[in-house]
Amino acid sequence: MPTLEIWLEYASTYSYLTVSRVGALARERGVLLDWQPFWMAPLREQIGMGAPFPHASSKAAYMWRDLERRAHTLGLPYRKPEQYPVNSLQTIRVALVAARQGWCQAFTEEAFRLHWTEGVLIGTEANLHAALGKAGQDPAVVLPLASSPGNKEALKAQTARAIERGIFGSPSFVVGGELFWGDDRLEDALDWAVAQGG
Amino acid sequence: MPTLEIWLEYASTYSYLTVSRVGALARERGVLLDWQPFWMAPLREQIGMGAPFPHASSKAAYMWRDLERRAHTLGLPYRKPEQYPVNSLQTIRVALVAARQGWCQAFTEEAFRLHWTEGVLIGTEANLHAALGKAGQDPAVVLPLASSPGNKEALKAQTARAIERGIFGSPSFVVGGELFWGDDRLEDALDWAVAQGG
Repeated sequence: MPTLEIWLEYASTYSYLTVSRVGALARERGVLLDWQPFWMAPLREQIGMGAPFPHASSKAAYMWRDLERRAHTLGLPYRKPEQYPVNSLQTIRVALVAARQGWCQAFTEEAFRLHWTEGVLIGTEANLHAALGKAGQDPAVVLPLASSPGNKEALKAQTARAIERGIFGSPSFVVGGELFWGDDRLEDALDWAVAQGG
Repeated sequence: MPTLEIWLEYASTYSYLTVSRVGALARERGVLLDWQPFWMAPLREQIGMGAPFPHASSKAAYMWRDLERRAHTLGLPYRKPEQYPVNSLQTIRVALVAARQGWCQAFTEEAFRLHWTEGVLIGTEANLHAALGKAGQDPAVVLPLASSPGNKEALKAQTARAIERGIFGSPSFVVGGELFWGDDRLEDALDWAVAQGG
């Protein structure tokens, strides 16, 4: 079955559009999703990228307007979160456990939905617990795993794996040796996976 | 008639995809194009944007691969130019005269075509003269106009007008109060112009 790696940072804005769409689009095309949570901060530092554009810039103002407009065009609900950026580290650690155990998609869809449509922000306990609940998971079991030394090491290894693939932002998609960056390339990436076959 | 402002920096890479497509797409939708050449260097400085990403970065490597792949997907010829970036200032000055006189589209399409498919780079005399010829213009008439103090002032005014609109990159599209950035938003911008009507 054609497989697409989907590389996600949970504080990323445009990733909301992808997380909301990718499940249905992949199903339609018969593509398997391989969820790869990663943490942008150390990646950015290790590849020597500068800081993201300032919050007060015209580019940032554009991003918010574009995101809202794209959500509308794509038929997705959208409510601008009151805080940006958020601290996504704990959510990413949980997502990494989720990816290993096979429930990353349900967890991720709910975490993003709460953040982008209900104002329950990623990085809060309320978001984390509700998303775990939606994925049928017990926080008392999962949270210790997420904070374990082994999982912290696994997250470091994710940074290295992301860099190997040439990744510099979220969402990114990898199929074979091909990297696609941004929600605008989601369909192209899925089509590429289908063309590559199983 | 619905009108779309198209803001272009002639050293921009992704702008090739737009310049190659916009004429036909606008014609199909009955949208009038209002060509707005601008120079990125002073705009970048005036809005306090940092330097573009380094040439050796993974983001730059991605850009070249993505550009080639997109050109292929869109059915456009593509030959990677041997030099990047190029000095686009003289071409932009000529384009500004062209916009005022109504032959900017023919000039721009040929300048980009030569650069991106034949290795005749923007910034060279060969490119400039061939693009002028294609637009039916005499370099002996146009070049003095392009270098005149009045035109240099007009280019400065373009920077201010671009900043007023919130522009930070090329290609950008403006219709009413709405800004769209990037070749990936070309269709959305044209659709917006149509929805706004005349």
